[in-house]
Amino acid sequence: MGSNYSSRRSKLIRQLKNLGVDGLLISGLSNVRYLTGFTGDSTWLFVTASDTLMLSDTRYETQLEDECPGVGVRIRDARRSMNDVVSDVVRESGIERLGIESDHLTLSQFHALQSKTEAIEFIFTASAVEQLRQIKDKWELEQIRDAIRFAEKGIAVVRSMLRPDLSERQIRFILEEAMRSFGAGGTAFEPIVGVGPTGALPHAHAGLRLVSDSPALLIDWGAQTFSGYRSDLTRVFFTARPTRQMQQVYEVVLKAQQAAIQAIRPGVRCCEVDAVARNLIAEAGFGRYFGHGLGHGIGLDIHESARMSPSSEQVFEAGMVTTVEPGIYLPGKFGVRIEDDVLVTAGGYEVLTSVPREFADAVV
Amino acid sequence: MGSNYSSRRSKLIRQLKNLGVDGLLISGLSNVRYLTGFTGDSTWLFVTASDTLMLSDTRYETQLEDECPGVGVRIRDARRSMNDVVSDVVRESGIERLGIESDHLTLSQFHALQSKTEAIEFIFTASAVEQLRQIKDKWELEQIRDAIRFAEKGIAVVRSMLRPDLSERQIRFILEEAMRSFGAGGTAFEPIVGVGPTGALPHAHAGLRLVSDSPALLIDWGAQTFSGYRSDLTRVFFTARPTRQMQQVYEVVLKAQQAAIQAIRPGVRCCEVDAVARNLIAEAGFGRYFGHGLGHGIGLDIHESARMSPSSEQVFEAGMVTTVEPGIYLPGKFGVRIEDDVLVTAGGYEVLTSVPREFADAVV
Repeated sequence: MGSNYSSRRSKLIRQLKNLGVDGLLISGLSNVRYLTGFTGDSTWLFVTASDTLMLSDTRYETQLEDECPGVGVRIRDARRSMNDVVSDVVRESGIERLGIESDHLTLSQFHALQSKTEAIEFIFTASAVEQLRQIKDKWELEQIRDAIRFAEKGIAVVRSMLRPDLSERQIRFILEEAMRSFGAGGTAFEPIVGVGPTGALPHAHAGLRLVSDSPALLIDWGAQTFSGYRSDLTRVFFTARPTRQMQQVYEVVLKAQQAAIQAIRPGVRCCEVDAVARNLIAEAGFGRYFGHGLGHGIGLDIHESARMSPSSEQVFEAGMVTTVEPGIYLPGKFGVRIEDDVLVTAGGYEVLTSVPREFADAVV
Repeated sequence: MGSNYSSRRSKLIRQLKNLGVDGLLISGLSNVRYLTGFTGDSTWLFVTASDTLMLSDTRYETQLEDECPGVGVRIRDARRSMNDVVSDVVRESGIERLGIESDHLTLSQFHALQSKTEAIEFIFTASAVEQLRQIKDKWELEQIRDAIRFAEKGIAVVRSMLRPDLSERQIRFILEEAMRSFGAGGTAFEPIVGVGPTGALPHAHAGLRLVSDSPALLIDWGAQTFSGYRSDLTRVFFTARPTRQMQQVYEVVLKAQQAAIQAIRPGVRCCEVDAVARNLIAEAGFGRYFGHGLGHGIGLDIHESARMSPSSEQVFEAGMVTTVEPGIYLPGKFGVRIEDDVLVTAGGYEVLTSVPREFADAVV
């Protein structure tokens, strides 16, 4: 596949010392996939300097052989719990300090684990794998570019089929089927399709409102590759003559988005880029109508680190892929959000998405 | 909608004393939806004897008004964290002992919460809402019956369209689109479509294998209503003359499933029903090829309490809906699983699903 799971695990193993642990227990599903290529669930990864073991059950015995050749596997039957197996492998390995993923392990899981594994010390490692995942390798970038291509071909179909009597839901389904027909494994998330006031709800579900109910149609969508990588875009289309306010709001959002994108480069803090967009929107008098963060990383998950928000002290690095998605939402009227996917490069940034975004392009 | 969210919350409030708490913080997404009807995310529910507050952010301000009329809402802006708001409402309420959902809250979330909310005592309540959700009310049963109907109409379309050159993936997409065209909001989970050896992987992804590659085709699928309720079925179809072993395995699985279903009634332990099927499969010599639990509750989540496994001491009660899904998987050859959705009734059980399941029905 061109993806090198063992080199990713090597990077993690090189961090064990810095994390102050002899071993790591990886329970986050996307983290397990990132490190091994395994696409199932209910499976944890145990890593030490000398051992790599997938802890799973009989449902996944054959699938693990297929997807993770060369990786050790410990299969339990229906009578034993995951914690029983963790207890076994920890004891056998002789480690003393086990790192666990405190961003993924629930309180209940941790307490059950503690009660089975008394002799060792647990170290909370919040996001060791997430930090590796922030920087996309060449193969991952190819996957994200594919996910973008499926999404962009899909929206072109929708755009060509827009007519007054389509409902939000019908548009959602046309979009999903089009993306698949071009090769997507599925959607990156439930597409948001909102006409007029529905578009003013940043996370609305596509409902029964018709295109003819308002000139403004907001679509927030993305595709997922069969390899699990995602894209995330938003466009607003004007399906009838937009009001002056619609045009004004659109131009403000676009200006804010473009200025924020141009501020992206290695070394800049996420809150600084967020502020570029937020200040422009506030200066235009719409500050209270932009309540969410400016963007987020994408990859195997639709919301990854780094997050752009007023309080985010994270710093951009080359190889990160982030959405940039300012919005203005006028309750009961309409919403405008413009969202693109941007790669941080050594010299600054590259916009990976190419659906036209000028106001004139939005009028269909 | 016919659903009574406030009576569900009243049931929970009546349990505060038994749980040893003055208030509860509900952070599980499906639990919040169950208690309020809210369909978004990133939103927690704070409940005391006198207060009911949704803790959310500006993205959901209008949606909360629409979906949860009469419920108090506390909206934070992008500069404040969820824990800041929890800290506020806990202080204002004057409570001393706060119940948290230890099955949902991660270690990181809990530690952040603790650091913001020092004066109170936290009580771990693992599954208070999950226990309420086990017993489905009349409206919920209607939703599940709808989800089953969409799934059954969908599989009838697939069955009518089966032909040798279809791939697993094509079948998956035909099925998903058919379920939607009958009124489903989507799938209950990623449908499993496995020809021959793929069907021997209990949780395989639909791939590129063709129907013509083996007589045995396993499909595990379900629909989801727009209200969020799910169905879950599995059938095996023989698209060419099945081998004698295929027929033998099929008959063993069906016998095990039917015997297990007939053992379901209020008061019986889940492990006892599991044992009925497991013993029959073991007696037929296939014990080591059935590695997973016999079934699980369904509802707003695809896997709910109660779970049927050899170690499950949970007891069936009238109003529960469970899958019954024994399987035999012969690695590299084929798999047979037969799965139906069963309601526990006062007098015993009612099988809610009606897709034919005799061996003769399986031969298409």
